[in-house]
Amino acid sequence: MDINQLAQQHILKQPLYVTGKPIAYTAREFGLDPKDIDKLASNENPFGPSPKGMAEARKALEEVNLYPDGGSYDLIGKIAEFRGVNREQIAVGNGSNELLDMIAQVFLGPGTEAVMGNHSFAVYKLATMAMNAKIVEVDMPAPGYNYNLKAMRDAVNEKTRIVFLANPNNPTGSDLTAKEILDFADSLPETCVLVMDEAYTEFIEDTPELVPDFNSRIAAGKNIICCRTFSKIYGLAGLRVGYCITRPEIVALINRVREPFNVNSIAQAAAIGAIDDQDYVNKVRELNKKGLEQLKAGFKELGLPYVDSHANFIAVSGFKDPMDAFKFLQAKGTIIRPQPAMGDVLRITVGTEAQNKKCLENIKAYLGK
Amino acid sequence: MDINQLAQQHILKQPLYVTGKPIAYTAREFGLDPKDIDKLASNENPFGPSPKGMAEARKALEEVNLYPDGGSYDLIGKIAEFRGVNREQIAVGNGSNELLDMIAQVFLGPGTEAVMGNHSFAVYKLATMAMNAKIVEVDMPAPGYNYNLKAMRDAVNEKTRIVFLANPNNPTGSDLTAKEILDFADSLPETCVLVMDEAYTEFIEDTPELVPDFNSRIAAGKNIICCRTFSKIYGLAGLRVGYCITRPEIVALINRVREPFNVNSIAQAAAIGAIDDQDYVNKVRELNKKGLEQLKAGFKELGLPYVDSHANFIAVSGFKDPMDAFKFLQAKGTIIRPQPAMGDVLRITVGTEAQNKKCLENIKAYLGK
Repeated sequence: MDINQLAQQHILKQPLYVTGKPIAYTAREFGLDPKDIDKLASNENPFGPSPKGMAEARKALEEVNLYPDGGSYDLIGKIAEFRGVNREQIAVGNGSNELLDMIAQVFLGPGTEAVMGNHSFAVYKLATMAMNAKIVEVDMPAPGYNYNLKAMRDAVNEKTRIVFLANPNNPTGSDLTAKEILDFADSLPETCVLVMDEAYTEFIEDTPELVPDFNSRIAAGKNIICCRTFSKIYGLAGLRVGYCITRPEIVALINRVREPFNVNSIAQAAAIGAIDDQDYVNKVRELNKKGLEQLKAGFKELGLPYVDSHANFIAVSGFKDPMDAFKFLQAKGTIIRPQPAMGDVLRITVGTEAQNKKCLENIKAYLGK
Repeated sequence: MDINQLAQQHILKQPLYVTGKPIAYTAREFGLDPKDIDKLASNENPFGPSPKGMAEARKALEEVNLYPDGGSYDLIGKIAEFRGVNREQIAVGNGSNELLDMIAQVFLGPGTEAVMGNHSFAVYKLATMAMNAKIVEVDMPAPGYNYNLKAMRDAVNEKTRIVFLANPNNPTGSDLTAKEILDFADSLPETCVLVMDEAYTEFIEDTPELVPDFNSRIAAGKNIICCRTFSKIYGLAGLRVGYCITRPEIVALINRVREPFNVNSIAQAAAIGAIDDQDYVNKVRELNKKGLEQLKAGFKELGLPYVDSHANFIAVSGFKDPMDAFKFLQAKGTIIRPQPAMGDVLRITVGTEAQNKKCLENIKAYLGK
């Protein structure tokens, strides 16, 4: 008997998420020294983890024989204080990826729908498919690859339970204004939940007109879930920790499907330290801005069109065969992320000044310029 | 509109898993020094984490700004070598808890059933309910609280997709012989999957007649999944990492529902180090045996019946009001786990010699003896 016949049949259609290639894999494949490889493929923080986060992580390691605090009491308290919300409004995940999965598990099932952009974070699609719900993709047209909020609103119907929106969006780097997003949120019916993916929001938080404040709407009972992660500006991707802010009633639902010890104890400790490390956050934001300018200037010089990103990555086009470009750059020690679904586009993480320089040189060599 | 109306309705029935109380919570509540509190509630390793695991964890922390290897290449290779199986036979989880959830997600849904003992690990029930499948509980009668394999086999029908069996069982501490388990496995129809929870198997691995070897059956295509964890004998509960060994076809299904970065990078590194730390494993196994003897002797002296456990915990009865006993012991600095579903039973983790001594003294005081 074929084991696949015993599986839930919709699982068989579930695609595998392709992760950014780890440095060690590329080093093995090409016989390179890992130190000579720059991974600009997964929007990680090239400046390293938050030092205060690291210090707390080291301390927590000493007691790693004990289970994590399943209630994440201290971490949730810290986030609540930092973000100015009540602790009952916060749920935590094994990365914000797990939060997206848990939210899907709570609200999606056969006969329901989730609305999302067609060039957005792949996990929205995977989470929806895993629950056997219908994916409703709304076109994000080239060259700006931005959300069409009018079309997204039109795609919402009585079966829609979730609308996924990322600000800034990944992998396009496009962003919306705070007013556009708030107007969109206000236009949604109460039969669906707006999931705001704010994984990259810290990079634009010094530009208030780009960052909607949902706190008053959430306090008023609107169905909005704002997801954040410690994987990006805080530099803790390896540890897996994210959180969301929403209505306490939604937190209670998420906690029903949450595994009791979903966030490991090192991640909890490191995230607490990282929140106390806002000087580091501000420094990374500034360095990222400089890196973005460096890459944009380089692309201009090479005549390559790009989306005017404010995140820690940028979508650059002009690569007829993005897989070919990926392979060439990889062999030169720069791992980027091809985006074949977006045509001739590569997504490149903003690295250190030296990494950006090398990346631009390698692209120049690839283009034969 | 009530948000619960928008949720998947079976989620609303999902009970919350009650975790062992963290030391910090009890310290806060009773104004105790955390150092004076022994947590014998969650079957953790009282001798600390594997030292070699810790050394690898510390090294890995330096690169925690990078995502984990989503394919857990090195860890899976290490496990495969250690356990004598192919790497394609291994899937990894954020603790074996996540593996249980993923297995349920693959095989369970409305109209399917999962068979389990009525005094077994709570997560089997939670994972089954989360998939809106039917829980079929088979009685494990006092005082031995062992599995009734005949009744379990009888409970399997054409709708059964999973049979959960733990060896040794948690929270009862009961075990079966290798022959009993293998005969049971061989009796199951090919329309269901036997999930062997081997979280505590390392504690009995020096007693071959208690530990079935499933490798040849798995290689022959039997639907058996053996789940293990690094949370118990390896002392890495805080890091969250477990694995399962099964048919490559089942690994492929699990990987379809697995989050891309489900196992954090520190856990991957620590688990690799811990596997190289078999001297430590052997030492913990011996110390645990001595601790079990110490507790059993103490219970005998107090006239308390217990299950003859070989795991790192023991179920002891004679507590008319287990919640009352829990509260008394907690205030005295010994956190144990009441098991109200098992009547007058407490589950007590084997601690260090000093912790066991203090626990027995506190129980004596509670009983007024």
